[in-house]
Amino acid sequence: MTNPANPVPLAPLAAIPSEIRCAQDYEVLARRFMAAPTYEYILGGSGRDQTAPANLDAFGQWSVYPRLLRDVSAGNTRVAVGADTFSHPILLAPVAFHKLAHPAGELETARAAHAMQTCMVTSTLASCTLEDIARLAGPQRWFQLYFQHDRVATLELLARAEAAGYRAIVVTLDASIQVASLRALRAGFQMPAECVAANLTSDGPPPAAPAFEPEASRIFQGVMRAAPTWRDLEWLMANSSLPVWVKGVLHPDDALALRAAGVAGIVVSNHGGRSLDGAPASLAVLPAIRDTVGAQYPLLFDGGIRSGTDVFKALALGANAVLVGRLQLYALSVAGALGVAHMIKLLREELEVCMALAGCATPAEIDRGALLRA
Amino acid sequence: MTNPANPVPLAPLAAIPSEIRCAQDYEVLARRFMAAPTYEYILGGSGRDQTAPANLDAFGQWSVYPRLLRDVSAGNTRVAVGADTFSHPILLAPVAFHKLAHPAGELETARAAHAMQTCMVTSTLASCTLEDIARLAGPQRWFQLYFQHDRVATLELLARAEAAGYRAIVVTLDASIQVASLRALRAGFQMPAECVAANLTSDGPPPAAPAFEPEASRIFQGVMRAAPTWRDLEWLMANSSLPVWVKGVLHPDDALALRAAGVAGIVVSNHGGRSLDGAPASLAVLPAIRDTVGAQYPLLFDGGIRSGTDVFKALALGANAVLVGRLQLYALSVAGALGVAHMIKLLREELEVCMALAGCATPAEIDRGALLRA
Amino acid sequence: MTNPANPVPLAPLAAIPSEIRCAQDYEVLARRFMAAPTYEYILGGSGRDQTAPANLDAFGQWSVYPRLLRDVSAGNTRVAVGADTFSHPILLAPVAFHKLAHPAGELETARAAHAMQTCMVTSTLASCTLEDIARLAGPQRWFQLYFQHDRVATLELLARAEAAGYRAIVVTLDASIQVASLRALRAGFQMPAECVAANLTSDGPPPAAPAFEPEASRIFQGVMRAAPTWRDLEWLMANSSLPVWVKGVLHPDDALALRAAGVAGIVVSNHGGRSLDGAPASLAVLPAIRDTVGAQYPLLFDGGIRSGTDVFKALALGANAVLVGRLQLYALSVAGALGVAHMIKLLREELEVCMALAGCATPAEIDRGALLRA
Amino acid sequence: MTNPANPVPLAPLAAIPSEIRCAQDYEVLARRFMAAPTYEYILGGSGRDQTAPANLDAFGQWSVYPRLLRDVSAGNTRVAVGADTFSHPILLAPVAFHKLAHPAGELETARAAHAMQTCMVTSTLASCTLEDIARLAGPQRWFQLYFQHDRVATLELLARAEAAGYRAIVVTLDASIQVASLRALRAGFQMPAECVAANLTSDGPPPAAPAFEPEASRIFQGVMRAAPTWRDLEWLMANSSLPVWVKGVLHPDDALALRAAGVAGIVVSNHGGRSLDGAPASLAVLPAIRDTVGAQYPLLFDGGIRSGTDVFKALALGANAVLVGRLQLYALSVAGALGVAHMIKLLREELEVCMALAGCATPAEIDRGALLRA
Repeated sequence: MTNPANPVPLAPLAAIPSEIRCAQDYEVLARRFMAAPTYEYILGGSGRDQTAPANLDAFGQWSVYPRLLRDVSAGNTRVAVGADTFSHPILLAPVAFHKLAHPAGELETARAAHAMQTCMVTSTLASCTLEDIARLAGPQRWFQLYFQHDRVATLELLARAEAAGYRAIVVTLDASIQVASLRALRAGFQMPAECVAANLTSDGPPPAAPAFEPEASRIFQGVMRAAPTWRDLEWLMANSSLPVWVKGVLHPDDALALRAAGVAGIVVSNHGGRSLDGAPASLAVLPAIRDTVGAQYPLLFDGGIRSGTDVFKALALGANAVLVGRLQLYALSVAGALGVAHMIKLLREELEVCMALAGCATPAEIDRGALLRA
Repeated sequence: MTNPANPVPLAPLAAIPSEIRCAQDYEVLARRFMAAPTYEYILGGSGRDQTAPANLDAFGQWSVYPRLLRDVSAGNTRVAVGADTFSHPILLAPVAFHKLAHPAGELETARAAHAMQTCMVTSTLASCTLEDIARLAGPQRWFQLYFQHDRVATLELLARAEAAGYRAIVVTLDASIQVASLRALRAGFQMPAECVAANLTSDGPPPAAPAFEPEASRIFQGVMRAAPTWRDLEWLMANSSLPVWVKGVLHPDDALALRAAGVAGIVVSNHGGRSLDGAPASLAVLPAIRDTVGAQYPLLFDGGIRSGTDVFKALALGANAVLVGRLQLYALSVAGALGVAHMIKLLREELEVCMALAGCATPAEIDRGALLRA
Repeated sequence: MTNPANPVPLAPLAAIPSEIRCAQDYEVLARRFMAAPTYEYILGGSGRDQTAPANLDAFGQWSVYPRLLRDVSAGNTRVAVGADTFSHPILLAPVAFHKLAHPAGELETARAAHAMQTCMVTSTLASCTLEDIARLAGPQRWFQLYFQHDRVATLELLARAEAAGYRAIVVTLDASIQVASLRALRAGFQMPAECVAANLTSDGPPPAAPAFEPEASRIFQGVMRAAPTWRDLEWLMANSSLPVWVKGVLHPDDALALRAAGVAGIVVSNHGGRSLDGAPASLAVLPAIRDTVGAQYPLLFDGGIRSGTDVFKALALGANAVLVGRLQLYALSVAGALGVAHMIKLLREELEVCMALAGCATPAEIDRGALLRA
Repeated sequence: MTNPANPVPLAPLAAIPSEIRCAQDYEVLARRFMAAPTYEYILGGSGRDQTAPANLDAFGQWSVYPRLLRDVSAGNTRVAVGADTFSHPILLAPVAFHKLAHPAGELETARAAHAMQTCMVTSTLASCTLEDIARLAGPQRWFQLYFQHDRVATLELLARAEAAGYRAIVVTLDASIQVASLRALRAGFQMPAECVAANLTSDGPPPAAPAFEPEASRIFQGVMRAAPTWRDLEWLMANSSLPVWVKGVLHPDDALALRAAGVAGIVVSNHGGRSLDGAPASLAVLPAIRDTVGAQYPLLFDGGIRSGTDVFKALALGANAVLVGRLQLYALSVAGALGVAHMIKLLREELEVCMALAGCATPAEIDRGALLRA
């Protein structure tokens, strides 16, 4: 017997439901395609969820000036991001365990990325192997790397990513500790059995930390013992033949230091509010970071993108392109590859409409003067 | 059988209902005189409705100083707007398809305009012909123009407007693309059969765009291909014997360029939030535009006017007069010409009360010093 | 049969109900002692009620610094207000028609004022005669004057007030027009038959205005024809042997002009939000007015006082004393003279507690440095 | 028969309930372990509860910058507070009558403090004797002092605290008058019979004040007659062999004067919103006070701490350590000593996580640059 408050989730559809009229509609509809605890886990951030909603609210503080009579009939959305040129500035953020949303996991997402000429950033914690994803994801694919507990394992991942044709490494540095989401805990979320990190050779837990001193801290002397430092980043860059990006930057000083260290580019991100609860909204720090690193340094952005107008605002405030996270899983759960492709199409077209009405024929024409602070 | 949640709309009344005590009351009451999807269509703006409510909220950021002991017994509300003098600064904004609200459509509105000495701005997309409207609308009537797909059709509209005695052309430039209102879509709104653009000779769809390049954008290379540019505006001004106003200005630089181009005046407007969702509130940009174009340049305003005090605030922040949009349709649906006339009378009297208490005998005495920013 | 949604109001009590623990509790309890339309009429302001709640909200923008170790054991609340010295800075504002709240009307209020050494400002529109009120109100009583339709009637009121021992005249200038409260209208409020202006000799309507010109305005050429001007104020001051105060000042320039005209003092007030809806909160303009008129000029305040801490804040921002309006009627309806006296006692004691904790032994020690802007 | 709206409170548990996932969860759960009026009394502040919620809201105005790649593997939370070094900066604020929350009262709290190496500040108004508490509380224990009605009684308390091994005296100066919480009054709260001040020899009421002058004030000439002044503080410091701290400072000038008077340190506090309702949020004044007293002067903070991130923010804005008040009683009611210990552990670990992600290895590294104002 089904519990009406907790019904059996619907299976992914083979067609776009007519209720979907904008990208964000997938967020609403996904609730019917996922078990409630899973939905809460994806929706929530960390701790008491201060940062995750702040990411969304930050966009409301800016409005976009419509401009008149400009000829945008030769317009396009092409952007250069580091060494790559993308047909539009919307990338798929690295998100762990797509099998949370769809039985075929990242393979469906990869198909959508290919169809939409979208750069997919495959997660270390993908629930399919990076090689299988690479075969479907199209030519524009990057690999997100978490430092592993030993350098051999990290090098092995790197080598596999290179061999599978990924074109850049995005190393995530803001998640040395991930604070659980109270929302997910209260909903009773537990990682389903089918969600395993398919890229990690050992399924077992990481090696136990050495016995603590009596006064030792589970955090400082435990979890953080293995956290990467500048030395690890330098080692990684020396050992990678691919450009290395860093994801998770919120402070201008870190941005400056990373640029000085030779990092290919940075992703302004608070991990979708899933790392430090209480961190600033990504959009709130974007302008200061762009000002600090200068106009030419490659800068991506994620955190709260729900519409093409949001993409426009992030570009205006300094991003070269944006990544979308949760929307992937929502669309994936509703209609698999078709849903993800449709979601990207909606975002792109919303962006084009916003550009057209704002009189910007290309992303390069979108600057801060296009916005008014509310 | 009627559905209580979706009852059959009431027919327009032949008298003012006693529930109407201020202009905004028509908004509330209209819900009972329209089919729900139509009401939602009129109420909504575009997209996720960020701009439409922002238009309203912007008025709350200002308060009006009462002033004492000033003699306003010779007061009046007369204003000069370009070449015309109006007995009060409240105009009827161009609104498409009045038959959405009343079976007789714009003819009822025109009767009200005449009775109240109100300048009606007839829409290109009126559901009655501009000639029929002109016969009823009184001497003060302007015509709103959308550029047509070919210049011949545009010139034909212009000639008809001149022949019908319209005294100015208001060309709307902020709606090259209109993003659908999610609110209206969710309510299942579809344009009723009786709502056709009575002024447009061909009922058929616009000519198909040429086949796209594979990489072409439906927006940039499709919709925006026909969007007017500065050249089109210059052509229009050269071919019009009437003064040409531009409606839909939000950026001071556009205002300045339009003044330089010889435009007779501009209408600060975001199309009631029905064009770019995410555009600034009209009132938020009004002071900067007035500062930019100087004290003498003719400036109209629309966006969020719901009371005579709102009219006062818009005049204080730089408008010479205001246009009201949605309130027309609400009043029309409730009580036809009588309702629209009553709504105008309420707004005008609320304005007079506000002027009297603020110690302003004429619109010319209303300036920014009359307001306090909250 | 009683309608539970609209029960018969309770009769005033002969004792303080135990639910009353602070002055504002009378506002809550009064709902049970008044007919609903009457309660709504008193609670509401004018129009759409923007100003009335703004009066309350303005206090929340300030907090009070507690101070330590100051000796306030010789403290008191005495204040000099113009020619008078009051034992505390809480006056009873002129409020029309106390019979709305209690069958004995202002006579009960006057008894409370006397008992609490409170200056009562009797309204021109009292529902008892000013002479009857004077006999009960104690030595500290002022009279609020509305200019009458002819000067003879105004002089007659003035002479009666002088004869009855009122010590000052407070002429109200902000209510040339009072916009009806939509809230009261919607509740179906009508002035009860027992509420007549007992001081006005003629019960008939004011003389009809002369016939209008066709273009004349009901507001400018009608209502405002009789509105007082500077000449009327000068005439009044010349004909009054009592000090003349002006009530209803919100703009610093008016305050300055009134001081220059020799007015004894002013009352910063927006008529409790019952005159121009959309006027600033009284507290929002108080500091600028004090700055403009200088430290010595007598300044009273009303608008939103609901607690002794509110009194403290108004004193800190420049008032010499405050008047309370609606709270009178609420307390009167619950427990007559006893209720009003108790309400004043509660406010005074709350003020003393706030002063003691803020380290201020006398009102003269309360200044802006005692507050922190939130 | 139990009233479902007012059920019999649960007895304290002997284990941590699984619903507790963060310190603040104790606040929610405690509602089931206390009689409703008691819960309301603890939850509420004073008067209309403006200050108590402001304490909480103030934390939301700041966000914490995550920082990357910093080595915190040698991190710790040790802080020096005056003469003491604590293993973490979370102290137990003096809270009266722990028997409100647990039959064994402060003895349970003391056990938790000892287990967690937490400095407990025992209240003068403890419901157990300071000697019994001292035996269980561990080596780090301070004593909170209220000035008694005569100096002999005060000296006696001081001597007992010294004899019982307390290491500092915290004299509370912001509660000369405590305004009752309307929330508690409305809930019908009355102090239970078992909650008596076990440290005060005489159970009787304080000596009656001398008969008042007719004009005397119950506040100024009554309650405040016995309030401590600077002379009393000087006397106390001269008679104490222990360092004397002052609790309840909100104004920078008071902080400066206390430092000048030789006070060992101050506690920035508004008594959890339980003294002057309308006082500023503690966090709102903390930075100005730190700026005024200089970087070296010992400064504690309480008011609104509900998470480890809140602790981080208070340290960043100038506190050397913080005290938690209400959380003690909430945790105590749920699970006695175990609950309090667990609550401290949760706060400490949340603090460590926040420090680790913010790149701060020790409290000394936490400064204002770690925060962004929202």
